[in-house]
Amino acid sequence: MLCKPINLKEKLNLFNDHWHPRILAELNGQQVKIAKLKGEFTWHKHDNEDELFLVLSGVLIIEMRDKTVTINENEFVVIPKGIEHKPIAENEVHVLLFEPSSTINTGNIKNENTKEKLDWI
Amino acid sequence: MLCKPINLKEKLNLFNDHWHPRILAELNGQQVKIAKLKGEFTWHKHDNEDELFLVLSGVLIIEMRDKTVTINENEFVVIPKGIEHKPIAENEVHVLLFEPSSTINTGNIKNENTKEKLDWI
Repeated sequence: MLCKPINLKEKLNLFNDHWHPRILAELNGQQVKIAKLKGEFTWHKHDNEDELFLVLSGVLIIEMRDKTVTINENEFVVIPKGIEHKPIAENEVHVLLFEPSSTINTGNIKNENTKEKLDWI
Repeated sequence: MLCKPINLKEKLNLFNDHWHPRILAELNGQQVKIAKLKGEFTWHKHDNEDELFLVLSGVLIIEMRDKTVTINENEFVVIPKGIEHKPIAENEVHVLLFEPSSTINTGNIKNENTKEKLDWI
């Protein structure tokens, strides 16, 4: 419904699986998604999309080929297009993602983690 | 600096004026901004930009011509392009904005609240 406030915690309570983003909103060709992360994800890059991770709870580590960053609660990072990265959540992490609607979670890689089509929640 | 985590609370501590967004990041032609709001803003619309308000603290009211929405902490709303709206913060509100880089804060209206060029923080 247009212009309806969306509560992040209520939406996070609706699912429990990891590395499976859900879409909350779309604007200007971009999507707002939430996801729960735990464990190590696939090394990948997005050739055409910059990707924003905002940590809502927990501590997210993102390895890149030349450095590693740690993103705490209430912090965000932008991973520019073309940069290989590997998200790691030692304990469960809740994130909000901003990225173009075209973005596939595993980018240039297709494997068991790939979610070709995401659901709205 | 690329891929550097950005802490929202640290950035909010760097300024105190109201209705004056600061830019934190740019990605895919969109900008992430933060602002402190207090009082009543100008009725306006954005002809070409959808606008996202994520409330980090406080309670934001957005009046539209046909309804009013209340956005609490950890909630966001998307105001679609073309929809006239008037943000109101009875007490101070901290928000994160996600919108195209072309977005002017007062949209189609130019008045004393208009910030033609925003600074990065």
